[in-house]
Amino acid sequence: MDPAAEITTPLARFLVRSRWEDLPRAVRHEAKRTLLNALGTALGGCRDPAVEHALAVLAEFSGPPAATVIGHPARTDALTASFLNAVSVNVLDFDDTHQPTIIHPAAPVAPALLAWAERAPVAGADLLHALVLGIEVECRLGNAVTPYHYAHGWHITSTCGVVGAAAAMARLIGLHEDAAARALGLGATQAHGLVESLGTMAKSVGVGNAPRNGIVAALLARQGYTAAPRTLEGPRGFAAVMGREADLTVVDHGLGTVWESARNTYKPYPCGVVLHPVIDALLDLRAAHDLDGADVERVVVRGHPLLRQRTDRPRPASGREAQVSIQHTAAVCLLHGAAGIRQFTDAVAADPAVAALGDRVEVRDEDGLAPEAVVVAVRTGAGVVHERSVDGALGGLERPLSDVQIEHKVRDLAAFSGVACDADALIDAIWRLDELDDAAAVIRATVPPA
Amino acid sequence: MDPAAEITTPLARFLVRSRWEDLPRAVRHEAKRTLLNALGTALGGCRDPAVEHALAVLAEFSGPPAATVIGHPARTDALTASFLNAVSVNVLDFDDTHQPTIIHPAAPVAPALLAWAERAPVAGADLLHALVLGIEVECRLGNAVTPYHYAHGWHITSTCGVVGAAAAMARLIGLHEDAAARALGLGATQAHGLVESLGTMAKSVGVGNAPRNGIVAALLARQGYTAAPRTLEGPRGFAAVMGREADLTVVDHGLGTVWESARNTYKPYPCGVVLHPVIDALLDLRAAHDLDGADVERVVVRGHPLLRQRTDRPRPASGREAQVSIQHTAAVCLLHGAAGIRQFTDAVAADPAVAALGDRVEVRDEDGLAPEAVVVAVRTGAGVVHERSVDGALGGLERPLSDVQIEHKVRDLAAFSGVACDADALIDAIWRLDELDDAAAVIRATVPPA
Repeated sequence: MDPAAEITTPLARFLVRSRWEDLPRAVRHEAKRTLLNALGTALGGCRDPAVEHALAVLAEFSGPPAATVIGHPARTDALTASFLNAVSVNVLDFDDTHQPTIIHPAAPVAPALLAWAERAPVAGADLLHALVLGIEVECRLGNAVTPYHYAHGWHITSTCGVVGAAAAMARLIGLHEDAAARALGLGATQAHGLVESLGTMAKSVGVGNAPRNGIVAALLARQGYTAAPRTLEGPRGFAAVMGREADLTVVDHGLGTVWESARNTYKPYPCGVVLHPVIDALLDLRAAHDLDGADVERVVVRGHPLLRQRTDRPRPASGREAQVSIQHTAAVCLLHGAAGIRQFTDAVAADPAVAALGDRVEVRDEDGLAPEAVVVAVRTGAGVVHERSVDGALGGLERPLSDVQIEHKVRDLAAFSGVACDADALIDAIWRLDELDDAAAVIRATVPPA
Repeated sequence: MDPAAEITTPLARFLVRSRWEDLPRAVRHEAKRTLLNALGTALGGCRDPAVEHALAVLAEFSGPPAATVIGHPARTDALTASFLNAVSVNVLDFDDTHQPTIIHPAAPVAPALLAWAERAPVAGADLLHALVLGIEVECRLGNAVTPYHYAHGWHITSTCGVVGAAAAMARLIGLHEDAAARALGLGATQAHGLVESLGTMAKSVGVGNAPRNGIVAALLARQGYTAAPRTLEGPRGFAAVMGREADLTVVDHGLGTVWESARNTYKPYPCGVVLHPVIDALLDLRAAHDLDGADVERVVVRGHPLLRQRTDRPRPASGREAQVSIQHTAAVCLLHGAAGIRQFTDAVAADPAVAALGDRVEVRDEDGLAPEAVVVAVRTGAGVVHERSVDGALGGLERPLSDVQIEHKVRDLAAFSGVACDADALIDAIWRLDELDDAAAVIRATVPPA
């Protein structure tokens, strides 16, 4: 790490000087896709116990009901709402992914902005702009500390997320450069979240705290709170303490011309990303040959050793575990013709038919294949073998979900959780968000009409 | 680090099983001293901008006014109050110190308990007991990761503090062993606070978040939130991620028989602890020889090289900087006959008489001296030299402040900040706290009567 590197001040300057009209059209559109996907996964996740329990605990301490809790009739103060909504976005592990870092960019940033937009009117373009800038800071900081940071044990979505949230809020509330730098410092000093917590509800605490504390960081900075001028890059600052040999040059390299936020990806299936090409292949085969899952005698999947190492998990005990089971995933593809949110419940994991077909699934290492490639062979009861190769799954950077596919995902997730909101109105508001005077229209569309 | 070590569960078991009547009398009394000192420093610090700014920002988001903000007419919800009160306790750097770790034990733990005690009646003995147990967890965890943790860049008061606060709250709200273990995990996953932030208000954010998030951790655990069963000791848990070669055996060695909370110390002077023997020597000399500061021609202090390295700071630019200036500190001792909170303001730092005498102060290395020892020589205008040696300063473990000295400190700090509370009533309530049915009496005594 270059001891003379400067990143806090350059990032603050970027936040203050960036102009919406200078952003490429594709970057602006990606921001809408990011927001739409996030609100969709929040609609799907908002009934999870991690949300319900937190709402039950935090309601007592909430200030006046100024902000929407996605999918709930209750309203809370903006800080509490941002916590709960971030948990909803992320809890199903179905939200967006920034590839090199595995940050889920939207969950820490978008809920902060949306909660603030209900406090005072915010133009839609301003909210989208702040979202882009917050994600830019979050993912560039993530790039600097990757791969050490996550591998060492930091839940990168939470740790870089609070800085991204502070950055986005600094822009949204119009901080000048010095105050924006202090907001970044006040965000960074609150970075937390242990990888040990993954797989438990404790993960959600770090994710929820990120937008909450990002809002607080920006507001404290505006109020006059001081912070170390090099909190991100100083000798006892974020990169030195939570990174190792962090490459700080990548933080501002191409800043304002190369957009990390445009490299965001959206999962089509709520399960481990290494399983996605397997799903693509099986759904294709089932449709092409009108396969009947009950009649399938054997499924053989050949892939990179990582696939077997991470997903060879027969008879998973829960929906959560089914998300990383190739046996379960292949079985639901062939039996249900789908691998959506309904296919990864505890009930489906316990279905004897799914378990029985899963027992006929085999995964084999094929060293020559890339991690994103698989070859799948299905043998029917009649002894016919159908084979399909996939080189890159739907939802990756090479084969992104289309806008219509994201819309479908949102409608499906809202229906799954039973939130009687008007998904069409939500989708329409997001595509027109840059023209709306009141950005809060999108968050208000996530609850049933009064 | 022993990969099979267990600390989360043993600590939870200790929290649940400990009995107040089994605590040695000295441990119980020390808890009162800790609480009294903390409320005193909070009374002194409650007008600091770090408190005022945070109150201005957080008031808008506060729930119903259920809890006292020390020294302020405003009341807030318990979470917000615990944040603000922890900042008040710690902001002057005049609070308690646990020697091997340099943790300030009370700030993260006591404000959580006090805020909770205003929500539902809590017996004084139960509050004191929870305080002891929380400090025990906090400091034992600190012992395990010291010295790497702080040296690497973690503000140990904040990081171990949130775990201590979660532990104390787990006991106070009566969690069973499994839930208490989850509370510890939910606290640990929120550990944060960068040393880079020291010397700025950003430090206070980590300190304030500690009790706030500790309360949330315990309440989420009660509500059913899950956490990794080995969040403190697991491969991606607190000790592995934020320590290095942490010695986990010290966490439960002597648990319940050796009390870290009884090793707490209280500063008599609001400045760097290495300056304390210098102050003792100069105040003694001034009183013994009726010295007139204006007539002092030269002051020579000989000490361990650390003394010079940390405090040779002529003409400090602010009260905060004066706290680590031997020139300023020696000058106020001789001119004011005191080194209290009034001697470390910006105004006194700018006083030409203090600066002029400071210019006549010299600090010399004397390798043979221990870090806690100094030899001070004062030469008067008449050429007389008075010398005094000090081997250990007032306020250390060997020469603890007496109860009466802590009382005096509390009264002085309340008078300094101008909080018109009844300090005598506060002091009286704390000495009788183990007999009170309503522990909240002590926190209510920190504000002027309505």
